[in-house]
Amino acid sequence: MARVSQEHLDARRRQILDGAAVCFARNGFHATSMQDVLKEVDLSAGAVYRYFSGKEALIAAIVAEVLDQVHEGFEEGARSTPPPPPDTLVASVLSRVLATKASVTVDGRPAFPRLIIQVWTEVLRNEELATILKQGYGAVQETWGRIVEAYQDAGMMRSDVNADHVARTMMAAAMGFLAQQALFGPAPVEVLEDGLRGLMSAQGEPARSPLG
Amino acid sequence: MARVSQEHLDARRRQILDGAAVCFARNGFHATSMQDVLKEVDLSAGAVYRYFSGKEALIAAIVAEVLDQVHEGFEEGARSTPPPPPDTLVASVLSRVLATKASVTVDGRPAFPRLIIQVWTEVLRNEELATILKQGYGAVQETWGRIVEAYQDAGMMRSDVNADHVARTMMAAAMGFLAQQALFGPAPVEVLEDGLRGLMSAQGEPARSPLG
Repeated sequence: MARVSQEHLDARRRQILDGAAVCFARNGFHATSMQDVLKEVDLSAGAVYRYFSGKEALIAAIVAEVLDQVHEGFEEGARSTPPPPPDTLVASVLSRVLATKASVTVDGRPAFPRLIIQVWTEVLRNEELATILKQGYGAVQETWGRIVEAYQDAGMMRSDVNADHVARTMMAAAMGFLAQQALFGPAPVEVLEDGLRGLMSAQGEPARSPLG
Repeated sequence: MARVSQEHLDARRRQILDGAAVCFARNGFHATSMQDVLKEVDLSAGAVYRYFSGKEALIAAIVAEVLDQVHEGFEEGARSTPPPPPDTLVASVLSRVLATKASVTVDGRPAFPRLIIQVWTEVLRNEELATILKQGYGAVQETWGRIVEAYQDAGMMRSDVNADHVARTMMAAAMGFLAQQALFGPAPVEVLEDGLRGLMSAQGEPARSPLG
């Protein structure tokens, strides 16, 4: 028998995950069958089941992979002192994650934002997936919390706000931005970057007039 | 025949909408039948169909009502000069909307965040609902854009960022915060308010040391 290289195995795994992502993004998790996935990736059942035991395993692998990418992106940010400011950091991590999924499309549009909100709905009724999401989200939130503390230590952010609340708010902005793309169509990450930059300059109290 | 007061009609309509919201939040739009709604509200088919022609009409009415509340909240903010700062304004509008839905629960938890992400998923395959959401979102975005311009005019926000991008980012933060609640459980609106306050103080460039 021919020896199968790790590279080949990885490429095959990638092909299956991306095909499954397209199917889930298009029709949701429930309305997608393993038959749909086999057809999408153009592989035999034997070839696919060698990697994944079924739909549950596929969606779990997709979600875990994305969360890992996001976490790794922010961990990298956390290693700089001080970390890149929020607008730059969010935009760079989001761009990188979106770029890895750029080839995964539905009707010629990026499938990733659609996939995300299908996953959220599925999480409401799938405990295993809920656990994966909660753990991955917790890891990202923990990293973000450290980044916020580093901002505060460097005098880049007021220190009288709870770092965890800022972390959740930053993640909320990224999540909502992805939801907007799924609902209203693609938008460049610069929209969010720009918006965060504006928000970062907002004052909590009305500015005094120069003559005041 | 007894004359039925407008108050009675409104209360009945409210009861039906809230019951339908619970059903949709619990099981999603597709898995909910009109029978489920009738059972939830404990009314006859005749009583319910007098108000709504079916599931589509129910979900459309629920979504339109929420978007109207959100829009009205921000319109009120837009009428002050200058408007309340972003952290205060988002928190007050979100609190008010959540309060009107506080009695709508699933398993003892607020159903509203769950409902929201079920609606998003449904929008992916329901053109009529997509149109309602797009219009309502567009109206909110337009109001937010005017609020951002008012911040900029009042010197409360840097004026070299696109007001529309800031508007989208503010809405993204609120949307993502609701998604977090659906996925990970309830959280007080103060988490988002606090997080925005922190973000509003964040600097784009590292602060200079006092000795620098």
